[in-house]
Amino acid sequence: MNNNDLSGLLKGVADGTVSIDDALLKIKQAPFDDLGYAKPDHHRHARQGIAEVIYGAGKTAEQIAGIAGSLLSHGEKRILITRLDNSKADKLKETAGFNYYPTARIGLIGSMPEKRTGKIVIATGGTSDMPVAEEAAITAEALGNNVVRLYDVGVAGIHRLLAHTDDIMTANAIVAIAGMEGALASVIGGLADCPVIAVPTSVGYGASFGGIAALLSMLNSCASGVSVVNIDNGFGAAYQASMINRRTSSE
Amino acid sequence: MNNNDLSGLLKGVADGTVSIDDALLKIKQAPFDDLGYAKPDHHRHARQGIAEVIYGAGKTAEQIAGIAGSLLSHGEKRILITRLDNSKADKLKETAGFNYYPTARIGLIGSMPEKRTGKIVIATGGTSDMPVAEEAAITAEALGNNVVRLYDVGVAGIHRLLAHTDDIMTANAIVAIAGMEGALASVIGGLADCPVIAVPTSVGYGASFGGIAALLSMLNSCASGVSVVNIDNGFGAAYQASMINRRTSSE
Amino acid sequence: MNNNDLSGLLKGVADGTVSIDDALLKIKQAPFDDLGYAKPDHHRHARQGIAEVIYGAGKTAEQIAGIAGSLLSHGEKRILITRLDNSKADKLKETAGFNYYPTARIGLIGSMPEKRTGKIVIATGGTSDMPVAEEAAITAEALGNNVVRLYDVGVAGIHRLLAHTDDIMTANAIVAIAGMEGALASVIGGLADCPVIAVPTSVGYGASFGGIAALLSMLNSCASGVSVVNIDNGFGAAYQASMINRRTSSE
Amino acid sequence: MNNNDLSGLLKGVADGTVSIDDALLKIKQAPFDDLGYAKPDHHRHARQGIAEVIYGAGKTAEQIAGIAGSLLSHGEKRILITRLDNSKADKLKETAGFNYYPTARIGLIGSMPEKRTGKIVIATGGTSDMPVAEEAAITAEALGNNVVRLYDVGVAGIHRLLAHTDDIMTANAIVAIAGMEGALASVIGGLADCPVIAVPTSVGYGASFGGIAALLSMLNSCASGVSVVNIDNGFGAAYQASMINRRTSSE
Amino acid sequence: MNNNDLSGLLKGVADGTVSIDDALLKIKQAPFDDLGYAKPDHHRHARQGIAEVIYGAGKTAEQIAGIAGSLLSHGEKRILITRLDNSKADKLKETAGFNYYPTARIGLIGSMPEKRTGKIVIATGGTSDMPVAEEAAITAEALGNNVVRLYDVGVAGIHRLLAHTDDIMTANAIVAIAGMEGALASVIGGLADCPVIAVPTSVGYGASFGGIAALLSMLNSCASGVSVVNIDNGFGAAYQASMINRRTSSE
Amino acid sequence: MNNNDLSGLLKGVADGTVSIDDALLKIKQAPFDDLGYAKPDHHRHARQGIAEVIYGAGKTAEQIAGIAGSLLSHGEKRILITRLDNSKADKLKETAGFNYYPTARIGLIGSMPEKRTGKIVIATGGTSDMPVAEEAAITAEALGNNVVRLYDVGVAGIHRLLAHTDDIMTANAIVAIAGMEGALASVIGGLADCPVIAVPTSVGYGASFGGIAALLSMLNSCASGVSVVNIDNGFGAAYQASMINRRTSSE
Amino acid sequence: MNNNDLSGLLKGVADGTVSIDDALLKIKQAPFDDLGYAKPDHHRHARQGIAEVIYGAGKTAEQIAGIAGSLLSHGEKRILITRLDNSKADKLKETAGFNYYPTARIGLIGSMPEKRTGKIVIATGGTSDMPVAEEAAITAEALGNNVVRLYDVGVAGIHRLLAHTDDIMTANAIVAIAGMEGALASVIGGLADCPVIAVPTSVGYGASFGGIAALLSMLNSCASGVSVVNIDNGFGAAYQASMINRRTSSE
Amino acid sequence: MNNNDLSGLLKGVADGTVSIDDALLKIKQAPFDDLGYAKPDHHRHARQGIAEVIYGAGKTAEQIAGIAGSLLSHGEKRILITRLDNSKADKLKETAGFNYYPTARIGLIGSMPEKRTGKIVIATGGTSDMPVAEEAAITAEALGNNVVRLYDVGVAGIHRLLAHTDDIMTANAIVAIAGMEGALASVIGGLADCPVIAVPTSVGYGASFGGIAALLSMLNSCASGVSVVNIDNGFGAAYQASMINRRTSSE
Repeated sequence: MNNNDLSGLLKGVADGTVSIDDALLKIKQAPFDDLGYAKPDHHRHARQGIAEVIYGAGKTAEQIAGIAGSLLSHGEKRILITRLDNSKADKLKETAGFNYYPTARIGLIGSMPEKRTGKIVIATGGTSDMPVAEEAAITAEALGNNVVRLYDVGVAGIHRLLAHTDDIMTANAIVAIAGMEGALASVIGGLADCPVIAVPTSVGYGASFGGIAALLSMLNSCASGVSVVNIDNGFGAAYQASMINRRTSSE
Repeated sequence: MNNNDLSGLLKGVADGTVSIDDALLKIKQAPFDDLGYAKPDHHRHARQGIAEVIYGAGKTAEQIAGIAGSLLSHGEKRILITRLDNSKADKLKETAGFNYYPTARIGLIGSMPEKRTGKIVIATGGTSDMPVAEEAAITAEALGNNVVRLYDVGVAGIHRLLAHTDDIMTANAIVAIAGMEGALASVIGGLADCPVIAVPTSVGYGASFGGIAALLSMLNSCASGVSVVNIDNGFGAAYQASMINRRTSSE
Repeated sequence: MNNNDLSGLLKGVADGTVSIDDALLKIKQAPFDDLGYAKPDHHRHARQGIAEVIYGAGKTAEQIAGIAGSLLSHGEKRILITRLDNSKADKLKETAGFNYYPTARIGLIGSMPEKRTGKIVIATGGTSDMPVAEEAAITAEALGNNVVRLYDVGVAGIHRLLAHTDDIMTANAIVAIAGMEGALASVIGGLADCPVIAVPTSVGYGASFGGIAALLSMLNSCASGVSVVNIDNGFGAAYQASMINRRTSSE
Repeated sequence: MNNNDLSGLLKGVADGTVSIDDALLKIKQAPFDDLGYAKPDHHRHARQGIAEVIYGAGKTAEQIAGIAGSLLSHGEKRILITRLDNSKADKLKETAGFNYYPTARIGLIGSMPEKRTGKIVIATGGTSDMPVAEEAAITAEALGNNVVRLYDVGVAGIHRLLAHTDDIMTANAIVAIAGMEGALASVIGGLADCPVIAVPTSVGYGASFGGIAALLSMLNSCASGVSVVNIDNGFGAAYQASMINRRTSSE
Repeated sequence: MNNNDLSGLLKGVADGTVSIDDALLKIKQAPFDDLGYAKPDHHRHARQGIAEVIYGAGKTAEQIAGIAGSLLSHGEKRILITRLDNSKADKLKETAGFNYYPTARIGLIGSMPEKRTGKIVIATGGTSDMPVAEEAAITAEALGNNVVRLYDVGVAGIHRLLAHTDDIMTANAIVAIAGMEGALASVIGGLADCPVIAVPTSVGYGASFGGIAALLSMLNSCASGVSVVNIDNGFGAAYQASMINRRTSSE
Repeated sequence: MNNNDLSGLLKGVADGTVSIDDALLKIKQAPFDDLGYAKPDHHRHARQGIAEVIYGAGKTAEQIAGIAGSLLSHGEKRILITRLDNSKADKLKETAGFNYYPTARIGLIGSMPEKRTGKIVIATGGTSDMPVAEEAAITAEALGNNVVRLYDVGVAGIHRLLAHTDDIMTANAIVAIAGMEGALASVIGGLADCPVIAVPTSVGYGASFGGIAALLSMLNSCASGVSVVNIDNGFGAAYQASMINRRTSSE
Repeated sequence: MNNNDLSGLLKGVADGTVSIDDALLKIKQAPFDDLGYAKPDHHRHARQGIAEVIYGAGKTAEQIAGIAGSLLSHGEKRILITRLDNSKADKLKETAGFNYYPTARIGLIGSMPEKRTGKIVIATGGTSDMPVAEEAAITAEALGNNVVRLYDVGVAGIHRLLAHTDDIMTANAIVAIAGMEGALASVIGGLADCPVIAVPTSVGYGASFGGIAALLSMLNSCASGVSVVNIDNGFGAAYQASMINRRTSSE
Repeated sequence: MNNNDLSGLLKGVADGTVSIDDALLKIKQAPFDDLGYAKPDHHRHARQGIAEVIYGAGKTAEQIAGIAGSLLSHGEKRILITRLDNSKADKLKETAGFNYYPTARIGLIGSMPEKRTGKIVIATGGTSDMPVAEEAAITAEALGNNVVRLYDVGVAGIHRLLAHTDDIMTANAIVAIAGMEGALASVIGGLADCPVIAVPTSVGYGASFGGIAALLSMLNSCASGVSVVNIDNGFGAAYQASMINRRTSSE
């Protein structure tokens, strides 16, 4: 709870418009709903400017629907559901305004928003990184961003990346997605003058150890200005990229 | 074998009421049954005040039934079977007094006991942690405890947790269950004045490494008074919480 | 901050004895001091019943003295400083009421308290585990507990442990400390009917990996009622054991 | 190739009974067959006193049959096939003299041998360790050993193990099999005066990491006289135990 | 090399003002110096808007001086040298305009720049994280940012952090620095509406594994909008935070 | 892009045969195709003397066909598709000139080339390593090499390897493939006078950790002249062996 | 405590020669001494046929002297002190009958015993493994064994090992010691017909990870009959080898 | 021992010029010297065309001198001693023909050889990689190769590497040395048409884990034709590069 809220509440108590018990109740109950299995956070939009996102893995379709219903009833217009597999998506397809993006494994309730002017580049090392890249791309678009997709520009054929220097030099934020050795993040980090958010993917085999090789590679990037999110976390990278782009762009 | 037993046995030998060979035999055979595949420990109730618990994973339904039968024939009134999957539970459903808790994957032979006065709080970071939380909750209830469930109070929306400060401040023991980064244990540990037993869960993906991230996080908690059990070990945490609550509460 | 504090503050605002700005200021500043390099938490004693403990590693002697001074000036009578090496202890020895326990690497400002009746057993696998055991023992004593030391009762000579069954059966909490394979925790866990808090130590070489072998062993204990703290964390185990003993014992 | 063979061959060359080219050919071709996909080692029986054992995992039933045929045609009377799953065993069941032990996942071509006098104890921590234990037991029996099975004598109920002190004190070699924290090996190692070969099993969950916890525990055993084989390697432990027993026992 | 450079060069060739060999030479040699042991990149300022930063570890004072000299001779006005220990700093102290920040282990050649309006918050979990925090703070200031230091606001006393909600809500970027369990990043991430760049530190012992526990914790943050840099990499986090702040602030 | 290309292009601009915009376009677009999901690199044959190889895992059959079509349309005569499973191979079987090698999981479009004179030895520790070995063998043959297969020559029966000293002493490059302890690479490395490229395989169980044991073993080989590729990477080893053989042999 | 002891004690109670309290006291106190910091086990010689061995690391010279004094006063004639560094050895050199072996870091109180007939081979991969090998050799000799040292017979020059086939074929037990890739154990395991106890050493660098590479290699040995002890544990390997040799040899 | 030797020996036996006992003795003793602590391999030059190299770490200066003396007395003209620290080098400086290269930590007895025509490129990511690079460079030169050093061409400033495309395109073998994220190997691997041998270095901090990050990155290189040696193993990479260059170049 930020200070303004608290200050306002205290003012209400002081001038008699709010009783002490009501104030205490409000502080404790206002910002979330209690569904037993979940406590949707209705305060997040105010606090962070972006609605609650539902992480679909490990929740039943019924639980997802319940949380979405709670959020919608509190006025949310757009709800993003990540890590939503096909079978759960099927059960949600009757929900009003629901759309499913299968490669990205994302469900969206509500329409895509207008796009702000600045752009986010989403680049991948290879074709196999596409599910993670699409999770990032759909997330970024659902958050109102203009997205440029540069897929399969891995460093084994460096000229494919260099050919897109224009896009890299003019982005507000870049999401660099790669499995195997994850070198893409460092090379882009050396070329770009905007923040690069690196996403290691679990693409690879053997000593890629499900993305650890790429993760370590990206954490040790010799290029400055590169930060990293969890393996396969396209959503998280796009979310932060959107935070950056929102501050930079005109809406 | 505790000293009283041994002392009593020696007394019997000294006063002629127990023969040497009988004494030796008793020491060796008394406290357990030998089923070949298992040796149920009938002495544990006396030694630890809590009946034998059957760990269901890696045992066949027949073996579980055999062990339960051996325990029942030695006077046990309540037997807890953990990590019991649906198909084994199905085979045991004819057993007298058998109940199955599917989310918790627990089978219980015998009825739930009376509850002692003190309470155990079981808190989770998210909805996906519920199977582990229910394993803890059912275990705690089967051991005679009053349980308060606080689910989905993870630190990303800290106000949801702060709203339950009352429960946290009045518990005798708290089981803090979280996957991903496991920060819940530290935040609760900083608020509570009773022991906090942290349970890392395998919820998450990528660099959560099946619960290692949460496990390490909890082991390194900057809050004092936090100890940790194995990943997904809701049973173990509840068992220790019950030991603490039993000593503190009036029965 | 607990609800009573907040409620009281709101009451003050409502009845005009506290101004809004003062209330806001109080909420934000009251419970800690800001030394720049540290923010000693003067609220912890009220919240958790135990004073702030200063973790000495990574702080200079000057910083430690500064934090201690802040706590003393807020009325603390006893301050525990852990992980305090010899050279820093030397610099603090002029502080009034300061005592240093070199094996435990603990400094204590103020005298040892009265002991409550219940006892805590502190057991070690070997002689080399003594520094960790003494950290636990001095901590437990500084928190008002009666401590029984059982050192060098490792499982390679199981009769040494069995000979102390009396102590184990009558403790309110047991701290089981062992390096190498850490089997002590499981064997004690199988004998005791009180909570066992296991402390893996970094004693060993090769595949003990600085305590990882003992840590994993303890996390996987086949005995119920065993929880674990960080490697070499004698303080943390004693702190939780004290929380348990305090609730169980008459003071 | 041992020196006697080489010496004999050179003698043959020197006295004209063996031509140089024949000698060279014999050195290169004699001791194994070349089936393309495998090179069965017909020399091992002479070299190590025990026939070739076929590791069934990763080989097709056809390859196994081919290797067995090659060995039989060179005079082997008994062939052990380990890690043989049900479906491959089915395909081999027509082979003359073939028997399948499903819990042990072992196939045996030929009859069980006479048993030598000394005994090997095979102990497990729990019921779930039985597949590994049976792999060890059948292997030991197929190599001519007298086996005593002590199953489910884990350290959480130490009296179950102490009750079998007789068996432990009179064995020529002990195979100690345990998952989870693997403490069984240390406790037995402290009681026995014969070599203890420890087998960590993959039984457990969470921080057992598929047997790593038990493996590390056993490698760090505080008891002298304990050595370790690979996780779940019942065969390897029994093989070495048999080597020890063979040297000690009268056949 | 960006397209404009290449395009301009090609124009020069086409209109005869640049010879082919000169063009080829320019493409190959222009953007860096070759000192044998190093190839300072004079093109970076143009490419990324920030001068080359010298990573001081693993270089001799002589090599550092050589690289700095090369950069200065190409017109750089401000050079940052990170991971510069005391003894190397001593050897460089005669360099014109050189200043050394010992806690941050940073050397700066040239004066601190004007500060842009937006602010970067740098928060730490504890006092021991200060060296990493100061590396971040000095870096951020050297890159022209307004820095707010919030040190020792770890989650074990959550009210210390909540008291600074104002700073957190009004920052353009936050650098969250913590060792041990690293929970600070998640809690801040749940409160803030700007990007949070998390820095795990090697502060801690035992199962903190030199910062791995905090690293994994931060990578698995349940809060959206958190990205991570390498353990102890205060520089890298500040560099990216500066990139974000520069785009958002008026200079 | 190599210098000759660039130089030629600049010459064209200088003598007026190439316009500036055309030159810039050519530099950016020439060497690859953009299929959206992939950017086939048509320049690789010129750059590396070997055509693009398609890594089949993580691509759909349609994507593979699309990439192959793009390569064929640019004049490639032979395309290797690795990690191609049965079901994808089925979908590609109508492609002109397509052949599938199931053990090797390789698809080849076009015929096998003539073989150069020098030979590559491919040796395995056991029968279970055959899939990796065949991936290496078919790759090497598709790249024009003469291959000698030495399968099942593991060090447990060292005479099987010593019998093939001739092959080892006369190879131009050796690919040593082994799982479990991976000792084969060191023993061959000690015998051979040509480069040995070691391939750890995921064959094994327990502490082989999916090939990590063999990988570490090979990286630490006490024999000089041994380098290592990723676990199960038969293709990569054969590719490098072919590079070596090509330089040494007459074509 | 073995059954005979217990049986005898009970007999004494039954026939009146031992009082109950004395019996209980004897059971509890007899087999060890309690020095506070240590509990020397005087029962081990009877139980295991070998005296207590003092692990010198982590004990002060004073503690070692105290434990040795306790053992000597209970009739021990020979005491082995392992991991004894130079400075502690210096402090013990006045002890009657004390000898120090610096390469082995072993102190021995009492003279070397007679040697039994059978022999133990101790082989190393390289010269750098000598400290571990000498720990094994001196231990084996102190336990009454005939030792053959084969140092620097690593697999990179396999003929050096093959030249000693005689020794390998006639040993009762072999201790195979190697760092780096640890292949020595497998090659010896393939040649020998007696148990091979492998000791990984911390010799190496980089990806040897302080002996992990050798440890994993040895655990995965493709040769049957190989077991493993902890990294650098020359003592443990020799202890088990002696157990085997003692049973096999005439004394 | 190769077949020709054995064949010749057998011929000698057959025609009576060699006695059986002499032959046996020769096979066993010929190819190495036995110094007790080491067994220098005088056969290696014949077998591998390159003299024995002494690994200096873990050997005393006296042992090194002894091994060198043995090799010199068997006719070696040039002996390379790697991992030779300053203090041991000092003790060897009186040896005839001894030279020490301090950055490379290499001692060389005898003069540098003539250089063959083909060249080996040795490239590093940064200045801090120089000790490993010089170990590679001096080794390569001592083995008769022409070396081109490209230091500090890391991917964060990719134009520095592209500027040396000529050297990369014309090498016979490339040694790519990098710490941190190790991306250099992939980028070079994508440009070169000769084998690239990658050397991860321990340069870096935090999640570089002493070179593991670079090691994994290089093992997972998306470029074909890249193999890897141990962390910091400049010698091993140069040794294999020399094997390749020797076969390709005219001497």
